[in-house]
Amino acid sequence: MTDGDLPARFAALFAELAAIGRDPASGTYRRLAWTDEDRAARAWFGRAAADRGLGTEPDRNGNLWAWWGGPGHGAVATGSHLDTVPNGGGWDGALGIVSALIAVDELRGAGFEPARPIAIVAWIEEEGGRFGIPTLGSRLSTGQVSPSDVLNRVDGHGVTMRSAMAGAGIDVARLGADPTTIGLLDAFVELHVEQGRRLAPAGVSVGVGSEIWPHGRWRIRITGAPDHAGTTTLEDRRDALLVLARGVIAARLGARVAGGVATIGRVTVSPNVTNIVPGSVDASLDVRAPDEVAVASIVKGVNAALEDAGVEEGASVALDRESWSPAVLFDTDLRHRVESAMDRALVPWAPTATAAGHDAGTLAQVVPTAMLFVRNPTGASHAPGERAELDDAVAGVGALVAVLAELAG
Amino acid sequence: MTDGDLPARFAALFAELAAIGRDPASGTYRRLAWTDEDRAARAWFGRAAADRGLGTEPDRNGNLWAWWGGPGHGAVATGSHLDTVPNGGGWDGALGIVSALIAVDELRGAGFEPARPIAIVAWIEEEGGRFGIPTLGSRLSTGQVSPSDVLNRVDGHGVTMRSAMAGAGIDVARLGADPTTIGLLDAFVELHVEQGRRLAPAGVSVGVGSEIWPHGRWRIRITGAPDHAGTTTLEDRRDALLVLARGVIAARLGARVAGGVATIGRVTVSPNVTNIVPGSVDASLDVRAPDEVAVASIVKGVNAALEDAGVEEGASVALDRESWSPAVLFDTDLRHRVESAMDRALVPWAPTATAAGHDAGTLAQVVPTAMLFVRNPTGASHAPGERAELDDAVAGVGALVAVLAELAG
Repeated sequence: MTDGDLPARFAALFAELAAIGRDPASGTYRRLAWTDEDRAARAWFGRAAADRGLGTEPDRNGNLWAWWGGPGHGAVATGSHLDTVPNGGGWDGALGIVSALIAVDELRGAGFEPARPIAIVAWIEEEGGRFGIPTLGSRLSTGQVSPSDVLNRVDGHGVTMRSAMAGAGIDVARLGADPTTIGLLDAFVELHVEQGRRLAPAGVSVGVGSEIWPHGRWRIRITGAPDHAGTTTLEDRRDALLVLARGVIAARLGARVAGGVATIGRVTVSPNVTNIVPGSVDASLDVRAPDEVAVASIVKGVNAALEDAGVEEGASVALDRESWSPAVLFDTDLRHRVESAMDRALVPWAPTATAAGHDAGTLAQVVPTAMLFVRNPTGASHAPGERAELDDAVAGVGALVAVLAELAG
Repeated sequence: MTDGDLPARFAALFAELAAIGRDPASGTYRRLAWTDEDRAARAWFGRAAADRGLGTEPDRNGNLWAWWGGPGHGAVATGSHLDTVPNGGGWDGALGIVSALIAVDELRGAGFEPARPIAIVAWIEEEGGRFGIPTLGSRLSTGQVSPSDVLNRVDGHGVTMRSAMAGAGIDVARLGADPTTIGLLDAFVELHVEQGRRLAPAGVSVGVGSEIWPHGRWRIRITGAPDHAGTTTLEDRRDALLVLARGVIAARLGARVAGGVATIGRVTVSPNVTNIVPGSVDASLDVRAPDEVAVASIVKGVNAALEDAGVEEGASVALDRESWSPAVLFDTDLRHRVESAMDRALVPWAPTATAAGHDAGTLAQVVPTAMLFVRNPTGASHAPGERAELDDAVAGVGALVAVLAELAG
């Protein structure tokens, strides 16, 4: 192997994973946890690791670990995830997995002998695209979510998480905090395609994660009454959608004022019939902002708008928090080692804050953790426009190689 | 048979139909056209007609006709429909069918010999609850909708109307205007449970239809972009739901100003995922008002709000009319005969305008048509609260008996 063929080798390996779960018509991806596409992606990961002499094994929660010189204590782990959101892009998660595998090739090709075990991990159900709990695999393993709180959740087809996991061969009785595996790690570094578009204006290929915004998800339930769309007077209506509309507008306004973002992304109207007033609405609210006070102010504004509209319309409103991820400030010492390694390897970089949740944010609660971001020219994420240029992806591999050599050398 | 057992006989027959398609848990009904529940209701109608010596036959569009002394020219038809909206009430349509059958019993019991044929008709797919085209059966038979415009419509499970009809034994090639059947009618009288609550304050059991408001349905399509809910800045968002929210609020405001009603009852958000900005929305708009100018002003206001919000958000908006029912003023001569007959029978009544569409509205375009309404104490419609008191239902039968005796005597 020579440096010269690195882009071609990267592109070839990336293309293997990119063939799994892609809809040819739209170019979107669908690799949801514990589906056929997920099984195919995990099998591909096992083969790619085996091609490099790395043994792969699942942990008790179904996260997949490929070890170079391990499993063992004091390990340095890298990796990301194989799942996508429904109709997502091809780079989120995939870039971190492929870059890790190619980084091992590069380290091997340079004659590097790791002084510590190096692990490549593929976390399960990072997106929460099937059961609505993001970073599920890393939260289970670090004890940040309890199996009993999630196993009865139901996907869009009425399948419980318990049954989906059991169908994938997971022993559900053994799910949960996994200090045996997590305790092996001295550091975790996740490389990820940039979400948003901050690196392009800065003119650099690679970012180093500085923080992850605090992030919560809420469930909105509005109960009005399903009445005839023709004969029910405006005064007699209890239109749940009208109440939600006020909340949608308040979410945007509140986010603007607080400098954050707020999204009502999932909406189910019942009975959802042309000639019936919406009787009830079930919806999601996703809020992220630079600090927890800002998040709280946005949620408070949405709640007030829903409550006010509910009183006017005669509809009841419930807003319940479903998940909460506090702000993550990445480990300062590790971050400085990562930045120094990149400086020595002459990789230009820029500090990068993100509003996206990551397994790295979960791991950062228990293990020194860092993130690398690779420039995304469009900024699109969870959508077919999501991508990185090959040159930038190769620069990302270079950064990861430098960081792994620093941490495991 | 004596007058004394009329309530019991009415209740017993009504209970037979009310057993079909009822969800015991919620008390709601689901009898959608060309489903098992529809087949069961039609079979029940055939048996109930046969018990009265009436032969039943479907016309080319699948409407069911039970004849007393026919088929023949100069006929007087009454009836309504057997289908419900999804999760609808038990009285809409059903009351008109059961009242017609009991009215025949009463006329027979009184020794009435019809001088003209009397028909009881059960129109198919009145609600449009399966394929979104209300009063489909009567529109097909009167040539107010063309088969080619509707046969490729798809229900919520991806089944085309063509395939649903063929599965019910309808020869799809023969669908369409049916002057042979419709030409037999000299008058059509539909009895229906009141929708809304105007008769209760007036203190009468029965209303006589004066007019049906003009009524249109539109399809709203909004196309933005599905981006990451965390990393997409507010400025970069093209949130289709935010655009719809502005339309929902404009619909209520416009309806209030114009003295009509407007409903956005069906909403499909795509991809409908918690952590993705809504990329597109497909929704319905249903507008009714006392006159066409008022309807147009409401629709214009909704369109302007959607367009303005679309421009601000960078989303494209389409508002397309899917159906249109002009105002119906019922035949004056027939209405006066109906009112006189009720006065002679000492049935108190009140004139009643309605914003609900009915097969009577369709028939009124081609045949002298009248409507009778039976008091609804709650005003609920298309919902489990929909009902009539037994005394009022019996008064409705009395009104229908008087009207049929007048028209067919």
